[in-house]
Amino acid sequence: MPYELFYWPGLQGRGEFVRLALEDAGADYVDVCRGGGRGQGVAALTALLRSPGLAQLPFAPPILRDGETLISHVANILFYLGPKLMLAPENEALRLFANGLQLVITDFVKEVHDTHHPLSADLYFEDQREAARQNAEAFLAYRMPKFLGYFERVVSRNPFGADHAVGETASFVDLSLFQVVEGLLYAFPRATANFGELYPRLTALHDRVQARPMIAAYLQSDRRIPFNPSGIFRHYPELDREPATAKR
Amino acid sequence: MPYELFYWPGLQGRGEFVRLALEDAGADYVDVCRGGGRGQGVAALTALLRSPGLAQLPFAPPILRDGETLISHVANILFYLGPKLMLAPENEALRLFANGLQLVITDFVKEVHDTHHPLSADLYFEDQREAARQNAEAFLAYRMPKFLGYFERVVSRNPFGADHAVGETASFVDLSLFQVVEGLLYAFPRATANFGELYPRLTALHDRVQARPMIAAYLQSDRRIPFNPSGIFRHYPELDREPATAKR
Repeated sequence: MPYELFYWPGLQGRGEFVRLALEDAGADYVDVCRGGGRGQGVAALTALLRSPGLAQLPFAPPILRDGETLISHVANILFYLGPKLMLAPENEALRLFANGLQLVITDFVKEVHDTHHPLSADLYFEDQREAARQNAEAFLAYRMPKFLGYFERVVSRNPFGADHAVGETASFVDLSLFQVVEGLLYAFPRATANFGELYPRLTALHDRVQARPMIAAYLQSDRRIPFNPSGIFRHYPELDREPATAKR
Repeated sequence: MPYELFYWPGLQGRGEFVRLALEDAGADYVDVCRGGGRGQGVAALTALLRSPGLAQLPFAPPILRDGETLISHVANILFYLGPKLMLAPENEALRLFANGLQLVITDFVKEVHDTHHPLSADLYFEDQREAARQNAEAFLAYRMPKFLGYFERVVSRNPFGADHAVGETASFVDLSLFQVVEGLLYAFPRATANFGELYPRLTALHDRVQARPMIAAYLQSDRRIPFNPSGIFRHYPELDREPATAKR
């Protein structure tokens, strides 16, 4: 029985953090909302969210269905899938550390989103441009360096070596860090121009994930939705700026 | 050996979600930054965050230390503590559901915070008042009803009864929902005036948590820091408004 992933079609969004884990592991899964078959498409997601009899109701996608089990929220899904896909450390303390890192990534992704939607997710970008400019300015000057400097230190200090963020093998945290770096390079090409210099270990980790055979194949496939102006990582040139000169 | 909680003193903040669980369970813990003893105070937190040899570096407080184990991020700490404090369901599917709910609460808390800091956490409220007014307006009109309507449905649909959000006994999710409702009542007294009518089961759950003997004693003690203008839930009258007339 394949895993079923429910996420809005047409954008990478938060669903992409789950897709990367499923793809890296070569897991059998159905991207339900992108399918045209019976019980597929966006209607399947809205039916699930509105299902009146559902006791363990999810708030929002991404949602993973594994047989009878429904799991929602990226970090929760990855915590569940990690051991099954061999993408999590076995040691309990390291699993908790990996979960904590994934939650820092969750917070960071929300802050990236808010650079273009600081006033409300219910308003268009065009209706909050000036606030977005101010938010993005502070994000690029303070928040991005704070988060990325932290991830750089985490990778640098991994006692098992800087090939991975946690433990001695690849985990969902590595895959998510790849996605974060990739998204920032797309959204803010100017501000990220010196990433390799500021964050050498994080950049190397990004490059290694990109070269993993299953990930490389996925990125070349039409299953990988291109970055676009509907996602979390959006390229609005007016929000981009010259790079910060120092990490924090 | 007592649990050690590291969190900024002087505000409830995100640390409060952990304190409520420790207090409800009557756990032996030290609120490190509020202590005046040796190895206590804020210096202990900054020393921990800057510790150069620390491999599993936390990003930010709250941080829980349990012997050799360091855990950071509210949802991660509660996932860890839940079973130890008898504040989590035993069933795995329900534990995952509880974790997912805690992550929705995490997102909601961030949105509450952003009503007064929509442009940047690094700027003063006074420097983002107009954006805050717009953010709070959209929050009260759309986001708050969306989240609270969801929590109301979750409590209503609990197959074990609406006394709890998940399972048949109190969990950290109940305690966190209490804190969210309590915080909103403080921050937005006008907009929440009809909460009891719109969200009867959530309100009843809030009242039951408040009446739990250990919680009632805690709320009366000086260990409970009052809400104040440094926390997540802040009362700025200019951000409050007449209640929405319908839930979503």
